[in-house]
Order: sequence, then C-alpha cells, then structure tokens
Amino acid sequence: MPEPVSSRTPLSPTPRSTPTRLRERARTDRADLDAVLDAALICHLGVLLDGTPVVLPTVYGRDGDTLYIHGSTGAGNLRAAIGSAVSVAVTLVDGVVYARSAMHFSMNYRSAVVLGRAVEVTGRAEREHGLRVIVEHTAPGSWSRVRHPNRKELAATVVLAIDLTEASVKIRTGGPRDDEADIETGGVWAGVLPVRQVWDAPIDSGDLTPGIAVPADVLQRIASGRVEAR
Amino acid sequence: MPEPVSSRTPLSPTPRSTPTRLRERARTDRADLDAVLDAALICHLGVLLDGTPVVLPTVYGRDGDTLYIHGSTGAGNLRAAIGSAVSVAVTLVDGVVYARSAMHFSMNYRSAVVLGRAVEVTGRAEREHGLRVIVEHTAPGSWSRVRHPNRKELAATVVLAIDLTEASVKIRTGGPRDDEADIETGGVWAGVLPVRQVWDAPIDSGDLTPGIAVPADVLQRIASGRVEAR
Repeated sequence: MPEPVSSRTPLSPTPRSTPTRLRERARTDRADLDAVLDAALICHLGVLLDGTPVVLPTVYGRDGDTLYIHGSTGAGNLRAAIGSAVSVAVTLVDGVVYARSAMHFSMNYRSAVVLGRAVEVTGRAEREHGLRVIVEHTAPGSWSRVRHPNRKELAATVVLAIDLTEASVKIRTGGPRDDEADIETGGVWAGVLPVRQVWDAPIDSGDLTPGIAVPADVLQRIASGRVEAR
Repeated sequence: MPEPVSSRTPLSPTPRSTPTRLRERARTDRADLDAVLDAALICHLGVLLDGTPVVLPTVYGRDGDTLYIHGSTGAGNLRAAIGSAVSVAVTLVDGVVYARSAMHFSMNYRSAVVLGRAVEVTGRAEREHGLRVIVEHTAPGSWSRVRHPNRKELAATVVLAIDLTEASVKIRTGGPRDDEADIETGGVWAGVLPVRQVWDAPIDSGDLTPGIAVPADVLQRIASGRVEAR
C-alpha cells in the first residue's frame, strides 16, 4: 500500500513532462497522480519498436512510487521495453464537453503520463510482489483467495517496474470555454454530457463448480457503485 | 462516412502488427477495426519525443480508411508527430476476468493499434473536413448546429491524418482460461465482472442563455443507452 503522501518524493516535472499548453489543467500534487493511477483499470504503454513509438494497452498496478506492468516472456513488444525509456498513460474520461463552436468541443478527463525507464524486476519475492500489486489493482481483494504464481508461470513472465518520479497530471472539469462573441450570440446549447463506468452483474464462468458463490471482494466492488480500481 | 467494407483496402497486418501472443484474440477483418475505432471516445497517440515513446490521450475521428487527430500548433508533442512514424491505440474495456489463479486474471476488451505516418493535412477544405470528422466523432450530429472554425482558429490548429493500412485488432470475451488442475480443485469463484460506460444527464453550461434546450443529437445519444461514439 502507498505510504502517506507527506513522506514521499514530490512530483518533479521536467521540461518534457511539463505541459506547454493549457497549463491551468496541469496538477503538480503527487496525490493527484496517485488518484489517477489508482482509479483506472488499464494503462497505455509506449515502447519504441523498430523506430516506431508503439502504444499497447495493458493492466498495471501501483505500490508507492513504483508502477508495475507485466507480460509474457514471449511478447516481443514487452521485451523491447526492458531497460528502455518508456511512457505510461492512464486516462479516465468523465464527459464530453459540448461547445457553441467546433474548436471548443473537448473532453472532461483525468490523465497521467509517466515517463521513465522500464526496469526488469528480478528475484522471486520481488517479482511475486509486483504481480500481486498488479492483480490487486485489477481485482482488489482477490490475491489472498487464488492460487499464486508457480515456478513455471514466473519463468514465463516479465515483470517491469517504472519509477513514478517524472509524470504529468492533467484534469479537466466543467463546461466549455467558448469565445465571448459566441456566448453573446446565444442560440446554441452548451454543456457537458457526463460519462461514467458502471459494473454489471457478475457472470459465473461456464466451468464453475456448482455452489461457489461470488466472493465478498467482488460483491463489495459492485456495491461501491464506482468503477475505480481503489 | 465510411464506404462499404467490400470496396475498401483489406487489413494487411505486417510482422510488427501481427500479435505474437494469444493469436486467438487477433482479428483481421477491417470491419472489426472500424467497429473498435468508431466505438471509443478517445485514443492514445504514441509520439517519439527526445528518444522516448511518449503516449498522449487525445480525441480523434475516422473517415473511411483515414484516422484524424488534431491539436494546437503550440503543442510541442503534436508538432513532433508531423511526418513521423506514430501509433494510435484505441481500447474499450468490457470487463474484469476473475480467475482461480493469479496469472489468469485478465480483462475483456476490444483494442486496435494502428501504425503509420502522421501526415499533416493542408488546404482549408481538407483541414476543415478533418476537424469535422473529429467533432462528429466526439459529438455526433453537432457539427451542423455550431460555429465552424474561422481563419484564426484554423491557423492555430494542426490536423494530422493517419492511413488505416497497418493495424492490429484484438478482442477478448468470455471467462477465464484457467488451468485444468485449478478448475478440478474447485473452491475458487471464477467469472467476469462486466464494465460498461453510461451517460449521465446533461449539464447546462453555467453561461447558457436561459431557454435553450438540450439538442436532439444529445438527447438521441443518451437515449441510445450506449457510450459508443457511433
């Protein structure tokens, strides 16, 4: 679990992680970064592959100032990330912003872009810890009741850690910022159409042993009413 | 609007756009690509910036075999994309897959990863067309009732086009693929917790002229019950 914010490294945006546009949306508080990273279900990893910055969706987890991702040793894209400069974007869409003019349409969102080097995690305990962090992010409360990775599974898995030292966080809320002239002209509706993720009822696996109930951690997740990882 | 599928370029995965893992999830039908691109609200753009593959969330739109993105001429990240090899990932999360063992947790999703060169769109009509495609993707039906970009706005905007010729589409559905031994052992719940995006009621802009009603295109979007762009 993350340590208290006060004891942790402050967010230190470098020139390349400092937004050059729309600075009013930028946040520099580490708590904002943590909140965005903890809320989303997936991230998008940027890896340089044969000269192309390839973007790949993947699951992840955060423990303090470390972001973990993982994958199969057979995945060329993930192998390319080992030891390399990468970025990880996490984005939550909160609404569509309808404006009075085409160029002011926008989205309300919370986003974090992390820049760093993907370091391969070695050592059985450290690797299992990284995988636990990812599983607990994906499915909070499930690690303690499922079978843990065995030697064969660990051998087939790459665990990567990225330090959360260089990151930018942007949050947009509220209505459109239309031009004064368009506001005065009137006649066109402007506002926000909010969007939200919801859980639907859990679906038992087709091969589930009869009589096994949906566990408390899943029921609690649904009862929370919010699709945010934690 | 897109032409009929039959008359369009087939998806031609190259080695780098062919998944090396979990091939059963890969789709090669262009209609699958179009469906994923048309459903999501935002994409993640990969741009090479000072040697780092930086991932940026942004809005987009599709017209036939062309994907459009745009941004401010003042955005260094977007300028870096002009004429460069980029990738665009579009991902829809459909559920969390709960397994009996840690390594089989997964997500149900629909994803597309497009690889290509970002070509700057020039010419007023072509640029306005690209912006229209993006606005109509973000807010279908709105273009015809809002003020269109003026000369000053166009001058401050970069419009980029990416050909949809090299792309991979992956779709995962259904329950966990647990090991036989874990299924036989039983005792652990396995299944899917579906996730879905929903619209909430529209919120008028604080500066809205009194008496302006929510337009039909917004009401229709809400009535559709699905958060999918089209």
